[in-house]
Amino acid sequence: MPKRVDHEERRWQIAAAVRRIAADRGLEGVSLNEVAAEAGISKGFVQHYFASRDDMLRYAATTLRGGVEERIASAGEPGVRDLLVALLPLDDAARDDALVANAFLVRALKDPAIAGHFRTGHGQLRDAVAAMLAAARDDGTLVSTVDPPAEAASLLALVSGLGDAVLLGYQSGEEAIALIDLHLSRIATTQGKTR
Amino acid sequence: MPKRVDHEERRWQIAAAVRRIAADRGLEGVSLNEVAAEAGISKGFVQHYFASRDDMLRYAATTLRGGVEERIASAGEPGVRDLLVALLPLDDAARDDALVANAFLVRALKDPAIAGHFRTGHGQLRDAVAAMLAAARDDGTLVSTVDPPAEAASLLALVSGLGDAVLLGYQSGEEAIALIDLHLSRIATTQGKTR
Repeated sequence: MPKRVDHEERRWQIAAAVRRIAADRGLEGVSLNEVAAEAGISKGFVQHYFASRDDMLRYAATTLRGGVEERIASAGEPGVRDLLVALLPLDDAARDDALVANAFLVRALKDPAIAGHFRTGHGQLRDAVAAMLAAARDDGTLVSTVDPPAEAASLLALVSGLGDAVLLGYQSGEEAIALIDLHLSRIATTQGKTR
Repeated sequence: MPKRVDHEERRWQIAAAVRRIAADRGLEGVSLNEVAAEAGISKGFVQHYFASRDDMLRYAATTLRGGVEERIASAGEPGVRDLLVALLPLDDAARDDALVANAFLVRALKDPAIAGHFRTGHGQLRDAVAAMLAAARDDGTLVSTVDPPAEAASLLALVSGLGDAVLLGYQSGEEAIALIDLHLSRIATTQGKTR
């Protein structure tokens, strides 16, 4: 079924153009003209693949999480720290992902489909972090009082805020990493700290 | 000089319209037509007060911090916890402020004037939190190892991330406050905890 594959590839290609524009100048830059130009195809082609701009933005939002997953996967078998650091906008790809996610935030509050996608992604990430924290606690490297789901939510909020701070130049990437380490050191056991 | 006052009042009124639209549908909703309609004035009038859309957005960005300062002031003589909680989007006004700040984030990265304004505001807030932390440390309610500037940056990043999490429905306001308290409890002395 090569036609079906083409169809999905083309939609993905258009979504990639939407993400590049959103990272560069926010959703306000995402017009039919701009997307067609960025994707190197005609406006009619874009319209063939997406019934409306809303439809296109909704689909583009579903393609956001990929980058994060790739960075986590590329960290090998990551510990919690590696995973959290991988979420910071420390290279161009991570920076673009963070910008696009920010560009979609206000829209997510008005579009239940996008909000639902964000929530699902965040839930999966939170569960993954919580599982790592629970394992580290059972391993004796984290203090026994750690509540994995709450601690995961706290760490992800910290990293999200640090990510914005790095983007806006409030902090360097090194300072952001140092603050993640400071948080983790407070929940580490002596055994965990010497590792 | 009533004319000058009128001029500033009118610019403020237009900026308020920009903020309402940005909170509702992001900067992509901020067009000359929409701003004029929201402010209840003619397009020509908007153009009289702002030379360009960029100029209008830049000015609107300078009016963002007001809300935060008002909420901090309304907390009376706030401790660090009150100040941090006041930054969470827990009521309509705080929610709108958070949405508008988010709407401006991607733009701030392209507009040095807006980025500079954000950085100045963040620096003032960070200094205020650091001063409170230093006082609490000297007071014996916070552990002596606390590094006020770094801790302030960490707490503000946490609150920023928690704010987005509350907006997106990842967490309730109560859960966000509990995570602020958890962080603060880890840097409190026994004396600080029993207060």
